[in-house]
This record gives sequence, C-alpha cells and structure tokens, in this order.
Amino acid sequence: MNNEELILDIAQRAKQAFNHSATLSAPKKNAILLMAADRLEASMERIRQENEKDLATAKERGLSHAMIDRLTLNEKRIGEMAQGLREVVALEDPVGTVVKGWTRPNGLRIEKVRIPLGVIGIIYESRPNVTVDAAGLCLKSGNVVVLRGGSEAIHSNKILGEILRECLKDSGVSEDMVQVIPVTDREAVKVLLEQDHYIDLIIPRGGEGLMKFLRDWSKIPVIKHDKGVCHIYVDHNADLDQAESIVLNAKVQRPGVCNALETLLVDEKIAHQFLPRMFEELRRQGVEIRACDRSRKIDDQVKAATESDWDAEYLEKILAVKVVTDMDDALGHIQKYGSMHTESILTNDETHAERFLREVNASAVMVNASTRFNDGGQLGLGAEIGISTSKLHAFGPMGLEELTTQKYVIRGEGQIRE
Amino acid sequence: MNNEELILDIAQRAKQAFNHSATLSAPKKNAILLMAADRLEASMERIRQENEKDLATAKERGLSHAMIDRLTLNEKRIGEMAQGLREVVALEDPVGTVVKGWTRPNGLRIEKVRIPLGVIGIIYESRPNVTVDAAGLCLKSGNVVVLRGGSEAIHSNKILGEILRECLKDSGVSEDMVQVIPVTDREAVKVLLEQDHYIDLIIPRGGEGLMKFLRDWSKIPVIKHDKGVCHIYVDHNADLDQAESIVLNAKVQRPGVCNALETLLVDEKIAHQFLPRMFEELRRQGVEIRACDRSRKIDDQVKAATESDWDAEYLEKILAVKVVTDMDDALGHIQKYGSMHTESILTNDETHAERFLREVNASAVMVNASTRFNDGGQLGLGAEIGISTSKLHAFGPMGLEELTTQKYVIRGEGQIRE
Repeated sequence: MNNEELILDIAQRAKQAFNHSATLSAPKKNAILLMAADRLEASMERIRQENEKDLATAKERGLSHAMIDRLTLNEKRIGEMAQGLREVVALEDPVGTVVKGWTRPNGLRIEKVRIPLGVIGIIYESRPNVTVDAAGLCLKSGNVVVLRGGSEAIHSNKILGEILRECLKDSGVSEDMVQVIPVTDREAVKVLLEQDHYIDLIIPRGGEGLMKFLRDWSKIPVIKHDKGVCHIYVDHNADLDQAESIVLNAKVQRPGVCNALETLLVDEKIAHQFLPRMFEELRRQGVEIRACDRSRKIDDQVKAATESDWDAEYLEKILAVKVVTDMDDALGHIQKYGSMHTESILTNDETHAERFLREVNASAVMVNASTRFNDGGQLGLGAEIGISTSKLHAFGPMGLEELTTQKYVIRGEGQIRE
Repeated sequence: MNNEELILDIAQRAKQAFNHSATLSAPKKNAILLMAADRLEASMERIRQENEKDLATAKERGLSHAMIDRLTLNEKRIGEMAQGLREVVALEDPVGTVVKGWTRPNGLRIEKVRIPLGVIGIIYESRPNVTVDAAGLCLKSGNVVVLRGGSEAIHSNKILGEILRECLKDSGVSEDMVQVIPVTDREAVKVLLEQDHYIDLIIPRGGEGLMKFLRDWSKIPVIKHDKGVCHIYVDHNADLDQAESIVLNAKVQRPGVCNALETLLVDEKIAHQFLPRMFEELRRQGVEIRACDRSRKIDDQVKAATESDWDAEYLEKILAVKVVTDMDDALGHIQKYGSMHTESILTNDETHAERFLREVNASAVMVNASTRFNDGGQLGLGAEIGISTSKLHAFGPMGLEELTTQKYVIRGEGQIRE
C-alpha cells in the first residue's frame, strides 16, 4: 500500500468502526477505558522504550530543552494519562440524552436526542499525551478517532495507539475505533483532509501554521482554534484590590496559554488611582508593560505601545495597557481588536456588568473573574478536547457534549401528512 | 468598484452590521419584520415590474414552464412572503435564552447563553421567495444575511432586498443587515467563499452541482444539504392497513422533495400478505415499482431493480422495493445505502421500534409515521432555513435556534485561578 491507499484504508475502517462505537453502552465504554488505564500503567517499560527513540531523534535534530521535555514520557506522565482516562470514566455519557421533547397537534411525539458525531480526526503536534486524552474523550462519546500526531512523537504515538487497540480487541469491539496514522508527512495529511466521505470533523491542536494549512486544504469541517487576545476592562467603580489580584492572575499565573490576559483596559476615571499600584506589582512580577499615551502620562517609565501591540497574543510576560474614556470606548476597543476568545469586566455596577456580558462577542464573557477560567476543566466540563474560536457547532471549551450532535426521534401512531 | 472589490465591500459591511444586529431587542426585530410584511404588500406593483424582467429573460432563454412558474411573483405569492414574515414574528426569539447554568465549587456561576451566529451567506437558486424567507429568519435570530440568488431571478431578488433595506433604514438600524449581491457569476461567488474573516456560515439552497461547487471552493463552513434516500421498513408485526397508508403518503403526497420515500423494505414474514395489496395501490397512484428478486416472486409484473436503484433519490413516482430477512437485514441495508436523512420503521413491537430509533444514523428516525414529517414546519420549529445532512452544528431541519450558537457567561466575585 502506498501512503494514499493507506490513508484511504484507515478512513474507511474508521467509518466502518463507527457503526459499532455509536451503540456501545456506557458501562461497556467505561470498562474499556479502565482497562486502557491499567494497561498503560502496566506497559511503562514498553512505552518508555519507544519514547526513547523519539527522544534520541529529537536530540540528534538539536530540538530545544523545552521541546524535548514536552516529548518525554516518564513514569509520572504515563500515570497521568491513565488517571485522565479514569476521570473520563467518571463523566456522564452524553449519548442518548433527551435534550428536549414536545408533542405536535397531530399526536406525533418529537424528541431531540444526543448521538455521537462520527469519525473525528485529531491533528496535533508534539505532546504524545494527546493520543490518549483525545482517544479517551472520543471513545466515551461514542465516536471513532483517527489520530495524526507530529513526526517528532511518532514512535510514542504509535505505541500508545497499539496499547489502546489491544484493549479494544480484548474487549471484543472493533479496534479501528482508535487508529494512529503511521506516516507524518504533509502530503499524507492532505489525503486525509480529502476524506469528507468518511471523516466528519477535524479537531486541530497546534499553532497558526497548522490552522492555515487546514484552512487551505481541508474538505472536512475543522474546529477553529485561533489566537486568544484576551482583555480585562477595569471599570470606574471596580474593587481595585480585587482588580489588582485578578489582572495579576490573568497575566502571570501561566502566560503561555490562550486564555491569559494580553491587553488591560482601564477607565480614565480611576486610572490615576489604579495604574501606579498595578504597574508596580506587574513590574515586581517581571511583566513588561507597553502602554498608551494616557497611561504614560501617569507613569512615564513604561514603554510606549505601538498599533501592533493591540492585537498581539504575546503568550509571555508582556502586557498592553490602554486608558479608555468610558465603557463604550472599552467595548469599541474589544470589538476592534478582540479575538472572540475571553473577555472580562471588573466592576461593581450591575448595569455595566450585564451590558458587557450581553454585548461582547466572545466564547466566554466574565464579570469579576480571571480570564484563566475559560477552560473545560475550570468550567466543570470535566475535560476538554479543545477550545473552539469559531461559532459553528461549538464556541469555547469543548467537552464530551460538544463531541455529540442531536437527531430528531419521532414516535407516531400512523400519522400521515395532509 | 470591480466585482472583487464589490464582494469584499459587501462582506465587510455585513460584519460591521452584525455589531448592531446582535443586540437588537425582540420587540424591535418584530417591528421591523411587521413593517417589511406591510411594505411588501404595499409594493405589489413595484415587485411585479421587476419580476417581469426576469420572466421576459426566462422566456427568451426558453426555460421550462415549471421553471418559469417557480420564478413568478404574483399577488398571491407576494402575500405569502408577507405572511411568512408575520409567522416569524410569532416565533420566540432564541437570542439571550439561558440554555443551562451551574455553579462551580469556587462560587463562579456559569451559564450557556444563546447568541446569534454572525454573518450568514445564503446561496440559492430560482425561487425569489427565499430572499424574504431567509432574511426574515436571519433577522429574527439577530444575524446578518448576505443573499446570493441565481441570475434568472436577479431583478426580483434585488427589488425584494431593496424593500427590506428600506424598512431597516426607516427603523433606524443598519440597512446592511440585509444585502443582496447584485452580480451572479460564479467567479463572484468564489470571492464570496473566500471571506471567512467576515462571513461565519454558508447555507446553500440548491442541487448537487451547487453542493459540489461549495465543497471545492468554500473557506467558510457550509451546511451540507445532500440527497435524501429515505427508507420505510415494514416490520413483520406492523399494522398493514396503517403501513399501506403511510407508504403511500411518503411516496406520492409530494414525490419531488428530499423527505419523500425512495426505498421500501419489507420483512419477508409478511411480504406475501403485504406486497400484493401495496403494489396494487401504488400502481393505481401511478408509481413505477423496481423490486428485488424476492418481491418479483410475489408479483412478477414489477420491474427488476438494479444495484443503482438502491441509492437512487428518484424525486419522482418511482419506488425501489426490497424484501429483507429480518430487522438486522433492514438495518444493514439502511446503513449501506441510506443518506442519513429520514428513516422510518412501521411496527407494533416496541423493542424493534426502540432499537431502530437508537441504532439508525439519520437526522430523523421515526416509528409509525410518514417520512414526510421531517420538515421544520411539521416538527414545530415554525419555519426552516434548510435541512442539514451533516452532523456538525445542526442535523436535520434548522429553525431559529439552529441559527444561534452559545457563549459561556461567567459571573464571579473576584475569583482567581490557583
């Protein structure tokens, strides 16, 4: 089989396996996930051996220490993957849930019932734990998963896939519910992205380059995950102690993630009071500040922001700061530069809070809370397979429920249409 | 402005208008829709004049009588469009609905709230009433609409768009909430399909050619509307009088639509009893039957089906018929040849009914009812903007609710992430 035939074969097997996965009971799925968790822990040595191959290549290629760290599967990380599967077992199976129901005047009873989406392709980079995490969530929600990780983790991904497939086989279900694509070149991905007859959805886990590639080549719907240019707006009647603590948390608790704060907007009525103390604390935490002219009149030590700072996703300890005239000015700024990811207002004025929550167009809008809470785990979804920044199908963190769709179930007693 | 600049300008205006449409109150939107209904009725002559231009071209081009009929806007049809808008007024506005809410251990209150999708592009053929129907549903759900109809209806579509825009302007809101693209060549559509920065979703209303074109060219997510190869399975313990009435209704009440019956599956245990009377009635109604060998042993007057009959969407008075061994055989046939549109089982056996409803993978699954009920109006959605045959975002008839998405609304009292 050449690569093209190989990909086609994988896609067809996946589609076939979906006939099986969609109707598995929750106890059966849970038993498989628990078996997989145990099996991973029992296979430490086998996994480590394959992971060593990837690490050796990474060192040869001169990858950074951070990259090599991301690739490494040690006892602790394998244990965490197993624990992750056990946590998915504890989540409620969304399949079969009746979302709503009603009766028509002619007596037809209508229900909308959750069903799995189908075959999901996950395209990801670097961290091999995605192989297990994504497979666990897809299995629990009755979907079939086709996994395509990066070349740097190919041996690790393959062995993890093998272990999962052994568990499926030993449980008497189709092992093709989980498949790891063994080739990693981009041409092979292009073939995969053509298989809209067999694959229902692509969920990417990667950076801007991957998103652009998918936009250009995919015939299959893709969950977009674009950048997070997240704002906090400190309103004139915010609790300033609380504001200081929230801004600090949103910026420095983990700067390298998409729900970290990137631009701080401050009402001019409290800017003189708030900015000096905030800047002092940010500096103490090693944050570089890039500020508008009005901010710099308050503190001329801070660097001047340029236009490109307003839509920057720094993902590091840098913060853009702008003094705004009022709430309208803040809303206008967010509308112009925001990325529809996470936006928060800090205020004690309920009218302002409710207006902000209603008018701001983002996957998560908040009042008096850190942007860092826009996360599947933190919101209580249990686990997340990604964060969608497009509005179709799902917007924001995607848990098990977002891996399902709904069908109409209609019960009659012989009704025909007039 | 050349065509490319024109399309870009339309897309940008639409995006800008969305900032306005998303926050309109339900009473305001209803007032606009009612004004539009009245204005359409008051503009009969103006509409008829423009429509005449399209009809003249159609006659010159020698279009069929049926095509010309579809294009024609007479007093009755203009009245129906106006009435359609009034019916949309009566529907509940989904925007702002709290779908669910919960509180986290740290006190954060989380809600999922319905919001409009954004800018929706409708690409349609022939019938100019789509201009008004689609605009009404998009407006009511807080969305902005960009309409691109076919060249054959361009004058009719433009005048309808103008009237709607006049109502928006007279209501003091952005008239760019509704835009009709004044050029109809395919190159212009390709430019439109590139504008994923400004347009959130494409909803097509047209045939296979249009779907293929969109699949090849769209960078914007598209709601798929593929063919409906709908089945009815008559189980061995069905009520045969009821079965006869349902099969007849599903096949002949309106054969040219996607939820009409195309293949009848009959359990062999009742085939001898059921098929002769069913065939007789179908013939009386002018239906051509193409049947499997086992059916032809029962009635050798019927034509033999070939492989291509099993996945045919006839859209006319032709019916494929197959005798199956049992329910498993029926499920296997539907799985192999079904198009995930509408599938119905006729049975008095509750276990069979529930298994069929659970296992069959289609946008609507039914027991003891005609497939013709898979329709937004019939299911009680009020009106439909289309039927989705893909599982992403919406599956089956799409009403107002399916024109929305959900954002996370998070209310805190100073929470930060540990």
